[in-house]
Amino acid sequence: MTNIPFDPYQRACPSRTVLDRVADRWAVLVVGALADGPLRYSALAHRVDGVSQKMLTQTLRGLERDGLVARTVHAEVPPRVEYALTPAGRAAHEPMQALEAWARRHAATVLGARAEYDARHAGV
Amino acid sequence: MTNIPFDPYQRACPSRTVLDRVADRWAVLVVGALADGPLRYSALAHRVDGVSQKMLTQTLRGLERDGLVARTVHAEVPPRVEYALTPAGRAAHEPMQALEAWARRHAATVLGARAEYDARHAGV
Repeated sequence: MTNIPFDPYQRACPSRTVLDRVADRWAVLVVGALADGPLRYSALAHRVDGVSQKMLTQTLRGLERDGLVARTVHAEVPPRVEYALTPAGRAAHEPMQALEAWARRHAATVLGARAEYDARHAGV
Repeated sequence: MTNIPFDPYQRACPSRTVLDRVADRWAVLVVGALADGPLRYSALAHRVDGVSQKMLTQTLRGLERDGLVARTVHAEVPPRVEYALTPAGRAAHEPMQALEAWARRHAATVLGARAEYDARHAGV
C-alpha cells in the first residue's frame, strides 16, 4: 500500500479513471434514475429517454465494474434482472445530482452564451 | 420563450448538451485548476498533468463557448492570454469539485471493485 494520496491532476494517478466513471453524461442520468430505487433495464431505457441500447449497456457495465451499481438476477421465470445503486453509487449520487441541477439551472445562460459565441465566430 | 422546464432526461432537451459540458473529466480538472485564479495556457497544461494540447485546446474552447471560461488577451508584447472562470463557471465549480472529491475519496474502493470484477470476468 502507498500513502501517496489520490490526485486526478497527476497523469499516472488511477483516480483519473475513477473520475471518468462519474464525470459522464450517461452515468449522471443512470445513477440519477436509480436514486429512487432499483429498476429493470427496460425501465431505465425508458427513463433515460433516447439512450441507445449500446450506450446504456456500456454505461451499466462500467458502473457495475466500478462497484457503483449492482446487477441482481431474481430467480423467476422469466428471470428478472434489476439494477440498483451500491453504497458507493449512493455516495456518488449527491455530486452527480448537483451537477445535473447546475445544468438545469444554468441551461438558459449557457445556451445563450453558446449562440452568441457561434454568431461571433460564424464565417471567421 | 417556453415555460417547459429544462430536463436532461428528455432526449430533445438542450440541457443534455449543457450537462455534457460539465460532466467531463477534462472540464472538471480545468475548471478546478482555474478556481484559484486566472491562468495562462502553459500553466494550465502544467497543472493538468499529461493533457494533450489538442484536448486542452478543445476543452477550453468548449468552456469558453458555453460561457464558463473567459479568454482575455492582454495587450502586451508578446500578447499575454489568460483564461478565467466566469460567474457561471464559478457556479459550476462547486459541483465539479464535489465530483472530483468523490473520485479521490472513493478511488481505493472503486479500483478494488474494478479489479474484482475483472478477475471474475477473466476468461469468461
